[in-house]
Amino acid sequence: MERYSHPSIDTVEPSAVFHALSDPLRLDIVRTLARRGPLNCAALSCDRPRSTMSHHFRVLREAGLVRTTTQGTEHINTLRKDELERRFPGLIALVLDTHASSELTQKAS
Amino acid sequence: MERYSHPSIDTVEPSAVFHALSDPLRLDIVRTLARRGPLNCAALSCDRPRSTMSHHFRVLREAGLVRTTTQGTEHINTLRKDELERRFPGLIALVLDTHASSELTQKAS
Repeated sequence: MERYSHPSIDTVEPSAVFHALSDPLRLDIVRTLARRGPLNCAALSCDRPRSTMSHHFRVLREAGLVRTTTQGTEHINTLRKDELERRFPGLIALVLDTHASSELTQKAS
Repeated sequence: MERYSHPSIDTVEPSAVFHALSDPLRLDIVRTLARRGPLNCAALSCDRPRSTMSHHFRVLREAGLVRTTTQGTEHINTLRKDELERRFPGLIALVLDTHASSELTQKAS
């Protein structure tokens, strides 16, 4: 069974967290996990290639944002919400509050 | 005289802002401008090559974080604080609150 490694939240650099959030798909995964709670990869992948998703989940794990655990053959992803709130106060609220510019246009019209 | 272009804050994508903050030097520039107010490039460059700094300031401008104006031969950089607070509430506070992991170790010891 695959084991994933996760950094201690205190060793995560702010620049690494911002890098993880600099990709629209990864930002979307973080938002979805924040809103809906733990989810398996299938629920988050939206038919994208497995290698693409593996890369994105690795970046998210290395930045301390996501914890992946295995349950049988399933890989469950959880946002490290409480730890993130302690180390980067306001980060999750900011991610949930921010909108793509196209969404702003829709709201204004 | 060089003229700089700056995007409307509403067209800036969240992922672009996070990308701009994903480099430790750019993060440091944003923190310094937030704490000390407008500064010229010399005050922020710390003896780094001019081409390196030009690149970083361009990324910061394109992400809507910094406005550069010219006054005579000086290039003054200003954090777009109020606009950023409206578009990305809590972002500046988060940037000022976050610390490198080495600083956490220092604080703990």
